[in-house]
Amino acid sequence: MTGAGMKADIAEQPEVFARLLDERAAQIAEVAARIVEWKPRSVVFTARGTSDHAALYAAYLTEIRLGLPVGLASPSAVTVYGARPDLRDTLVVGVSQSGGSPDLHEVLRVAREQGAHTLAVTNNAESPLARAAELHIDVAAGHEVAVAATKTYTAELLALLMLVESVRGGGTLPADELAALRELPGHAASVLADDTVVDLAARYRFADRLVTTGRGYAYPTARETALKLMETCYLAGLAFSGADLLHGPLAMADPDVPVLAVVGSGPAGQSMRDVVARLGERRADTVVFGPAAVEGASGWVRTPDVDERYAPLLDILPLQRLALSLALLRGEDPDAPRGLKKVTSTL
Amino acid sequence: MTGAGMKADIAEQPEVFARLLDERAAQIAEVAARIVEWKPRSVVFTARGTSDHAALYAAYLTEIRLGLPVGLASPSAVTVYGARPDLRDTLVVGVSQSGGSPDLHEVLRVAREQGAHTLAVTNNAESPLARAAELHIDVAAGHEVAVAATKTYTAELLALLMLVESVRGGGTLPADELAALRELPGHAASVLADDTVVDLAARYRFADRLVTTGRGYAYPTARETALKLMETCYLAGLAFSGADLLHGPLAMADPDVPVLAVVGSGPAGQSMRDVVARLGERRADTVVFGPAAVEGASGWVRTPDVDERYAPLLDILPLQRLALSLALLRGEDPDAPRGLKKVTSTL
Repeated sequence: MTGAGMKADIAEQPEVFARLLDERAAQIAEVAARIVEWKPRSVVFTARGTSDHAALYAAYLTEIRLGLPVGLASPSAVTVYGARPDLRDTLVVGVSQSGGSPDLHEVLRVAREQGAHTLAVTNNAESPLARAAELHIDVAAGHEVAVAATKTYTAELLALLMLVESVRGGGTLPADELAALRELPGHAASVLADDTVVDLAARYRFADRLVTTGRGYAYPTARETALKLMETCYLAGLAFSGADLLHGPLAMADPDVPVLAVVGSGPAGQSMRDVVARLGERRADTVVFGPAAVEGASGWVRTPDVDERYAPLLDILPLQRLALSLALLRGEDPDAPRGLKKVTSTL
Repeated sequence: MTGAGMKADIAEQPEVFARLLDERAAQIAEVAARIVEWKPRSVVFTARGTSDHAALYAAYLTEIRLGLPVGLASPSAVTVYGARPDLRDTLVVGVSQSGGSPDLHEVLRVAREQGAHTLAVTNNAESPLARAAELHIDVAAGHEVAVAATKTYTAELLALLMLVESVRGGGTLPADELAALRELPGHAASVLADDTVVDLAARYRFADRLVTTGRGYAYPTARETALKLMETCYLAGLAFSGADLLHGPLAMADPDVPVLAVVGSGPAGQSMRDVVARLGERRADTVVFGPAAVEGASGWVRTPDVDERYAPLLDILPLQRLALSLALLRGEDPDAPRGLKKVTSTL
């Protein structure tokens, strides 16, 4: 148990970003141009597991950057209950690294019948999902060795970001946006070169649960972190948006429940500072992931100071490494977690 | 610490159902008639905490029974990032027991500006949310004593069910639907008369985490159960749809992590039987809530055999009681959980 597979997948991410930017920008721009032509009135995302967190990120982007209402479709409404919603003027986007889940395939098939335009975002151009959709974006992350998804997640994030910004640009990625995105591989490499999280893992050696929190664009990072910790370390990972945490579950936060908080430098990060302060008052053990130290936190892992839209592609990197290090420390095999398969066949 | 408040709130639910059916059907039908007139192309729900689970239930109903695509809006996109989506032909529904959350109020205000029709579903007709929306449904649950929501949750469920079925009926609740709904108060009383769950609570005296699961209409029940246990017992409640549980988090299920599974008698319940069987293979300790015993489970709490659409109003009752009994057993005060307020003011 060395976690060599997951380690290699994680390390490859700067290269995956560079490849997407260099080799996939044209394909993504073509897809964007078609979407601009279609003028959808709303966008519905459908996905499961890790890809659902990429879809959630894309949902924020769509609502904020494109001004379109978004839905997150539960496959079961269609596959279990036979829902047949009217989807004219709607773009339905299926996100899946394998492209092999039969339920998402069925959702896209029904969506086409119901008048929707459809797009699949996958890491496998030959997959059933890719073939079921009118359009396909290949995130080109290459073969993922470990069962727990890492590089396919960030590849999905970047592909969806490029897509949304290209649609916003009328079918091309604006030059200033592209220039900013080209800095991401370098940022990713420098985040991955910082070993702070490897030492931090020891702190959670005996934790049996962990709360993760973030707001806005950072909320999917909190969700994905919780899932990664559950998949690889079998601890209970509880993700809350900063706002929801203040509703009910704050009751749970005490010095014995560690908190990982993603705190960016934009507007959501600003509101997260209050959440961290409230947690501090309760003497919760909060470690912050973000560009600046935060009052009330007992630890800080620095990530680059970028636009909150870009931060999810970078903030997750030390958190993936935390899951890997902690799994090894606990004697677990992060490459082949018990009870987990790469493609899940729910219908 | 007797939990007298939460106990009274829970016990009142049959009466709350009867009151809604007797006194609110006309108001709900009026709202339904307006919605039928408006012919929305899609429906967006916005809510937080417990009410978010009622909204999720209504989202399934809307997609399946009305054939309309649904969105679940994150308030932060609007309040933190200033998103201004085009909401013409969209009905935006805010669900909140207090009607006092400033962020939901702001989402509804912006939604009206952006061309949406708006509806507030609250337990307070004088609340800012009720006044901000074009239409309002008062769920008339009466004053809720405990901080943890119980009767306001099921009142929201029933009001939203009556609304959706009235819209489906063209502006009136069909007679056969009304007849079936009139059986709910009696069903609720008989479920509440069964003390099986009070004994069951002892089983979780020393549990520090608990997995809840359900699919389709039962998924909100799993989510609400997990939240209720977190709020009142401070244990880590992890809710997964049955399909998602098979993706990653099944790795976590082992004999030391108890599972509460909601298994109805309809199509989602059928697919949940496979999930329970898979859990059984892993020797997980699964207790089933539903109308029938399930292979692979180690326990069963019986709930009435009703349509899966109605089951969420009944299945949650023993689960609320479980949270109450377990909190008392653990020496916690379920009426005033630490760190929890009735109205949360996030913006």
